[in-house]
Amino acid sequence: MISVVKIGGNVIDNPAATRRFLNDFASLGDDKILVHGGGKVATQTAEKLGIATRMTEGRRITDGPMLDVVTMVYGGLVNKQVVAQLQAFGCNALGLTGADACIITATKRPVREIDYGFAGDITQVDAARLLAFLNTGLTPVLAPLTADLHGQLLNTNADTIASAAAVALARQGAEVRLIYCFEKPGVLLNPDDDGSVIAEINPAYYAQLKADGVVSKGMIPKLDNAFAALAQGVAEVRIIHADNITTGIGTRLTK
Amino acid sequence: MISVVKIGGNVIDNPAATRRFLNDFASLGDDKILVHGGGKVATQTAEKLGIATRMTEGRRITDGPMLDVVTMVYGGLVNKQVVAQLQAFGCNALGLTGADACIITATKRPVREIDYGFAGDITQVDAARLLAFLNTGLTPVLAPLTADLHGQLLNTNADTIASAAAVALARQGAEVRLIYCFEKPGVLLNPDDDGSVIAEINPAYYAQLKADGVVSKGMIPKLDNAFAALAQGVAEVRIIHADNITTGIGTRLTK
Repeated sequence: MISVVKIGGNVIDNPAATRRFLNDFASLGDDKILVHGGGKVATQTAEKLGIATRMTEGRRITDGPMLDVVTMVYGGLVNKQVVAQLQAFGCNALGLTGADACIITATKRPVREIDYGFAGDITQVDAARLLAFLNTGLTPVLAPLTADLHGQLLNTNADTIASAAAVALARQGAEVRLIYCFEKPGVLLNPDDDGSVIAEINPAYYAQLKADGVVSKGMIPKLDNAFAALAQGVAEVRIIHADNITTGIGTRLTK
Repeated sequence: MISVVKIGGNVIDNPAATRRFLNDFASLGDDKILVHGGGKVATQTAEKLGIATRMTEGRRITDGPMLDVVTMVYGGLVNKQVVAQLQAFGCNALGLTGADACIITATKRPVREIDYGFAGDITQVDAARLLAFLNTGLTPVLAPLTADLHGQLLNTNADTIASAAAVALARQGAEVRLIYCFEKPGVLLNPDDDGSVIAEINPAYYAQLKADGVVSKGMIPKLDNAFAALAQGVAEVRIIHADNITTGIGTRLTK
């Protein structure tokens, strides 16, 4: 079993929570891949550098200067701090962007109603290379950045990277578990009540939850990604609190 | 033959020169490893972020905020831009800091007369892992950063990384060529005359050049590193202009 684990930006923003999570992640026995979000450091760094942050529907508009900032912060600061901490916990981590070893290729998102700038839509994941890294004892740590084949780096959603990697590995015949870790205990019936975790969701129930407006806007892309991964051969998807990586307690998605 | 090539920060600062160099580097037939310096972007970024740059004898003093800056700029921006460009030139590059895959382990430099802060002195290079990357068609691209075994990232001189990597590979039985590329045509007899390139230097001649004060201060650590590498089994060392990577024309060091 290979675990593809995504750790959200809100956890990354909290050094103590990140440290706890990485210690637990390092202890997982399976082959594993970590995908990390960016957190607020990119926005804060951009602000200090005098670069305005523009968001549309929770997604960052990535112009040229902002691409440099996310490349510095996601690909440099966050990725290397995570890698170095994992090494200290005995996990032989290898930090990667999509450009490294051509692991994740993307194309610049076409401009339709919104120009997202240098945002990447994934076209290919080199799952054979990821498996080769795993087979030589390495734990890939993916930053939310990809590149096209012409040398252009692209900002890319970490949830999407995690599901695309999980699907590509499953297509290679691997048994894959996809785990989204964040600062909440799971998908909640009531966003203000951490006790309202939904233990299990199947596609029909998900459709109903969406129709009833129960699922929050920010959660919809994550769940869409997750159900798409299940439909494409990923064995198991969980959405859980970052503190629960060893138990897996939270929300389980089923086909 | 494995080529370990170091490209200097002054070349990295010039996008057109960098692009030319990377195109030539990508075309080299040998197995190859690239080590890049930092350039002025770290200093410029630090300045914009309100972080003071302190230098002593050409070396950066790396306090905590400056470590974050160099991790962002060297490990993120520069490394990933170089990797993405090499991919566009058909070279399957893999960006690494010393923390990644525990490739280069270091310890924080002890405080003696000068406190260099988070500066790393290399203790080990995992040459077997570098060879494994090369043997699977990858070209490692090393940023001038290392880590200790406790999760601490450390700023580390790129010339030293290049010579340490070359020596470690030679110890594994590989035939290794070490090439320092920069913005000058080689080691100069007269620093103001680019026509005064010294074609060949052996240790005795180097001692004489140093005694005569011919070798510039900035060049001494590079040449010390280079002769140490030759003494420890590296087959060949050259110091050349970044435009001459395919011909190797410049200064050749001999035992």
